[in-house]
Amino acid sequence: MIDLRPPIAPPFNATRASHLVFTVADLARSKAFYTEVLGLVVSDEDESVLYLRGVEERCHHSLTLKRAEGRPGCERVGFRVYDEDDLDKAKRFFQDMGLPADWAETPYQGRTLHVRDRAGTPLEFCATMTTRERMHTKAHLHHGARAQRLDHYQVLVPDVYATARFYSSMGFRVSDYGRHVRTGKIAGIFMHRKDNPWDIVFMERPGPRFHHVGYIIESLNDVIHACDVAGNLGLADCVEHGPGRHGHMHSYFIYMRDPDGHRVELLLPAIQIIDIEDSPEEFAVGPGVNPNLWGFLPPPSWVNEASAFV
Amino acid sequence: MIDLRPPIAPPFNATRASHLVFTVADLARSKAFYTEVLGLVVSDEDESVLYLRGVEERCHHSLTLKRAEGRPGCERVGFRVYDEDDLDKAKRFFQDMGLPADWAETPYQGRTLHVRDRAGTPLEFCATMTTRERMHTKAHLHHGARAQRLDHYQVLVPDVYATARFYSSMGFRVSDYGRHVRTGKIAGIFMHRKDNPWDIVFMERPGPRFHHVGYIIESLNDVIHACDVAGNLGLADCVEHGPGRHGHMHSYFIYMRDPDGHRVELLLPAIQIIDIEDSPEEFAVGPGVNPNLWGFLPPPSWVNEASAFV
Amino acid sequence: MIDLRPPIAPPFNATRASHLVFTVADLARSKAFYTEVLGLVVSDEDESVLYLRGVEERCHHSLTLKRAEGRPGCERVGFRVYDEDDLDKAKRFFQDMGLPADWAETPYQGRTLHVRDRAGTPLEFCATMTTRERMHTKAHLHHGARAQRLDHYQVLVPDVYATARFYSSMGFRVSDYGRHVRTGKIAGIFMHRKDNPWDIVFMERPGPRFHHVGYIIESLNDVIHACDVAGNLGLADCVEHGPGRHGHMHSYFIYMRDPDGHRVELLLPAIQIIDIEDSPEEFAVGPGVNPNLWGFLPPPSWVNEASAFV
Amino acid sequence: MIDLRPPIAPPFNATRASHLVFTVADLARSKAFYTEVLGLVVSDEDESVLYLRGVEERCHHSLTLKRAEGRPGCERVGFRVYDEDDLDKAKRFFQDMGLPADWAETPYQGRTLHVRDRAGTPLEFCATMTTRERMHTKAHLHHGARAQRLDHYQVLVPDVYATARFYSSMGFRVSDYGRHVRTGKIAGIFMHRKDNPWDIVFMERPGPRFHHVGYIIESLNDVIHACDVAGNLGLADCVEHGPGRHGHMHSYFIYMRDPDGHRVELLLPAIQIIDIEDSPEEFAVGPGVNPNLWGFLPPPSWVNEASAFV
Repeated sequence: MIDLRPPIAPPFNATRASHLVFTVADLARSKAFYTEVLGLVVSDEDESVLYLRGVEERCHHSLTLKRAEGRPGCERVGFRVYDEDDLDKAKRFFQDMGLPADWAETPYQGRTLHVRDRAGTPLEFCATMTTRERMHTKAHLHHGARAQRLDHYQVLVPDVYATARFYSSMGFRVSDYGRHVRTGKIAGIFMHRKDNPWDIVFMERPGPRFHHVGYIIESLNDVIHACDVAGNLGLADCVEHGPGRHGHMHSYFIYMRDPDGHRVELLLPAIQIIDIEDSPEEFAVGPGVNPNLWGFLPPPSWVNEASAFV
Repeated sequence: MIDLRPPIAPPFNATRASHLVFTVADLARSKAFYTEVLGLVVSDEDESVLYLRGVEERCHHSLTLKRAEGRPGCERVGFRVYDEDDLDKAKRFFQDMGLPADWAETPYQGRTLHVRDRAGTPLEFCATMTTRERMHTKAHLHHGARAQRLDHYQVLVPDVYATARFYSSMGFRVSDYGRHVRTGKIAGIFMHRKDNPWDIVFMERPGPRFHHVGYIIESLNDVIHACDVAGNLGLADCVEHGPGRHGHMHSYFIYMRDPDGHRVELLLPAIQIIDIEDSPEEFAVGPGVNPNLWGFLPPPSWVNEASAFV
Repeated sequence: MIDLRPPIAPPFNATRASHLVFTVADLARSKAFYTEVLGLVVSDEDESVLYLRGVEERCHHSLTLKRAEGRPGCERVGFRVYDEDDLDKAKRFFQDMGLPADWAETPYQGRTLHVRDRAGTPLEFCATMTTRERMHTKAHLHHGARAQRLDHYQVLVPDVYATARFYSSMGFRVSDYGRHVRTGKIAGIFMHRKDNPWDIVFMERPGPRFHHVGYIIESLNDVIHACDVAGNLGLADCVEHGPGRHGHMHSYFIYMRDPDGHRVELLLPAIQIIDIEDSPEEFAVGPGVNPNLWGFLPPPSWVNEASAFV
Repeated sequence: MIDLRPPIAPPFNATRASHLVFTVADLARSKAFYTEVLGLVVSDEDESVLYLRGVEERCHHSLTLKRAEGRPGCERVGFRVYDEDDLDKAKRFFQDMGLPADWAETPYQGRTLHVRDRAGTPLEFCATMTTRERMHTKAHLHHGARAQRLDHYQVLVPDVYATARFYSSMGFRVSDYGRHVRTGKIAGIFMHRKDNPWDIVFMERPGPRFHHVGYIIESLNDVIHACDVAGNLGLADCVEHGPGRHGHMHSYFIYMRDPDGHRVELLLPAIQIIDIEDSPEEFAVGPGVNPNLWGFLPPPSWVNEASAFV
């Protein structure tokens, strides 16, 4: 079994995957996809940036879209820490590791710390955000998949074990991991801080690159409704993989590509993982292994394509 | 627009697609698929034949499976007529057409008429069946997709227009039809007697061959549950196409292959078609046209493979 | 068993329950309920009348709301006949019965025949309507329960057997009926022309009064979404009975009252009834009998209140 | 706003509501309810005790039923702590408070600490349990509501504020609370340790008494299926309140009574509460206030009846 245990007392309290930034070519086009098909809510916008949140989210944004020339990319992957003290501790942790760690100004966020992890992924941490009204009870204002909240990221890195060891030292637990059927090498690791199996997932591929962000939906009917809406809006091609059911953790899923190719997973709420008995589960990956309980193999685009970090 | 109108007073009253017969190699293997994954109910069985019905069906069987050596096939496609008088009228209609029409003995059915249509498809008509308890309220006994009732057939024939004209003369109405985007030729016709768009569908391909039987399910959750069950029983490969949403008539669907390759569609209840205004709707078919509102193109197997008529 | 069989050749071909007219005090208030909560689509409107249809309906209106002073009521209950010939036959049928039968002009409808049944219920028949686009595939434009189509009416009459006998002579079949547990009297009869159990239902009470109109919904999630929307719009009190599951025919239901007290049922598609074997089923009604598989007894308002015929 | 903040460093790490014990009169009768209607899985049983878990739960039991003479009751309410160290810290915490705290032997559990809270509620803590296979992916073995996992308890106590202050000192956060519309008094407090709003809820009534245990379900279809099954098994009366939608936190719910009158809520997964910004929300309770977004007021039995602590 994989031997990655977080310290009993982590160096700082990272609480959850919380927010990220994509650059896009056309804000209006992206807005249609994210608000009409996924059902995210606009918290603020101007001509160069769009702040979005899930219908249940109280914090100002879980997805920021910035208009940019050139190749669209993922600018940064964000996590919350519990309080301001944790931010200072995080800064020391990265500095002690010899990694860059700098304060940044970000609208609608409290003090924000910009860092890079061992694999080079640009991360940020903050402890507070401006709040807005939760909209999950406002059913008359919901659209598309009525996406509830950001749940997790998947990042492609060349050495998943080394990357996971680094996150383990920050306090992330392993929920499950994939071992290659031929080489025996660990090819994927799922890690979490909050009470479900995933905050960040690493898969072995050239990187670091951003593979997808997962949003929780309330019901599989919401996935189908989102697809029906996409079909009507001329966006049927956004469906890249699914609907289907993942195997090892059983979550019902669909993967969509936004107009710039950034990938979003919609998934049902995952199982709860809290107890000390919840040791990592191993599953098989590799040629001939369908990682899903049923449904088709991921297409080559899903396997190979990802957003570059800007 | 297509010019196929049934006579005001049809030669006999065919009421609906009602029952069919498949031959299979292994009854036990087929039984697991049809009862555990699709949720059909066993009405009767012995070592060589299995009679199945949907949970809502009062009539004894909508699907008969017969054990047979050699290549599995579809033995016969059945329709109901309203009463015994209609059976006699049907016999005269086929005889007047110069087509074979013979009485046959079939267990659990009243007088049964065996005929062949213009395309050579083996059909049968009956007016009564033994009845059994409807099981749709017995939720504690339901399995898999809890398939409700047989809805329609799709048959592949070389000349869909000629075949449809024959069915039109029997009183079948056209609900919609597909015109090839390049040739302008009519490549598919959907016909019905009951109050929804489909009892029998013809698609242009070498034939006659049996493409699929459609069963109504109550909820798309039932489709997903059926897939989850299939995955657990080692039958995940039965999913051939979908889940997805058809375009022109909007029904949510999945296509599965049984252990012998016979194809079953599960679909939500269709729209109602009764009024005289419900003139046939045209849709496009051919290269580059996805017939679905969203989801992937049918795989080559769906396009090309079908059950032979025995 | 109840002895009510329609003639083999009915006097005219009534095909289905199709449209009705309510008078209401405030059109804007009613429009909010019917379009936002139930999800009906506006076909046409002016300051004194609102024409609504279900998202799947091609015909112009299934519900007409007219602004009127005084006590709101039901103006008329409508059925379709198959063609113009049937209209003339219907006129003769009512005249031969010594009942009034007069042609009327109704916007967006073809020739329209106004009659009264034996119990005094004002009915109308027409064979054609103006058509509009079916909207059931336009998921991005759906609201609330996205009600699909009108399914049936329930009318309260003092003598249900006599009334049912009259409808039987018009060609309506009995699908099921309720016998009073104490008196043995038939207290309710469910009748249909189309391929499901209900076009019109009679319950024994002072009348004739209009009890409810039933609209088909696609999924029980749509019922819950409609309730969530109603709660947000300050209309939570519209829920009168349910959600629950009827017993004898198993349909999942909810009953709502519109702002004038007119009652609407939302229900899943019913079972199919076509075959000659589908003889009427008896169920028990009366004190101590819950007509539902689960859920609470109907409240006194459901039992006693109804819309007057204008 | 309510002024109850847990210490930054709680005295011990209680992680979640996890398991409880009911006494019942007839184990077989209770087993049918919990396994067929709710869909819990039997982990172990003998003639005097039944250990049950939700389909997703890896730990041995979340509900223990013990056969007992006399009035059925709730024996004990259980929480998990993260590790063995926390158990020792918990023991000291209770002893320092002058409250009883004793080690107990409980089958399939590690070291178990029996205590009473300030209100007199019998609690227990443990850090480990025997594990079993998660069954949430085994769709072919699921029954009824396929209840996923235990989520929270509601306990009735005379002084909710004092009780909540005690739990706050143990590290529980307040997610929301109800203030009486007339008296201004705090009449209900919702508290949590895990990442959703509820582990334990206190409502003001004579007590301590056990009001209900909440289990998470995956889909509202599962609630309806459970009701359909209950209706078929002659248990339709188990539905006490709902289905409906709670107002202030929006969860879709139903309350059922088991054969001994113990109350179970089935609910969709709740929103996520982790961030420091998630300050307690106030809602109104009292005469004339429907706590639900729609649906009927709780019946008197829901308001007044509860299980005694044994």
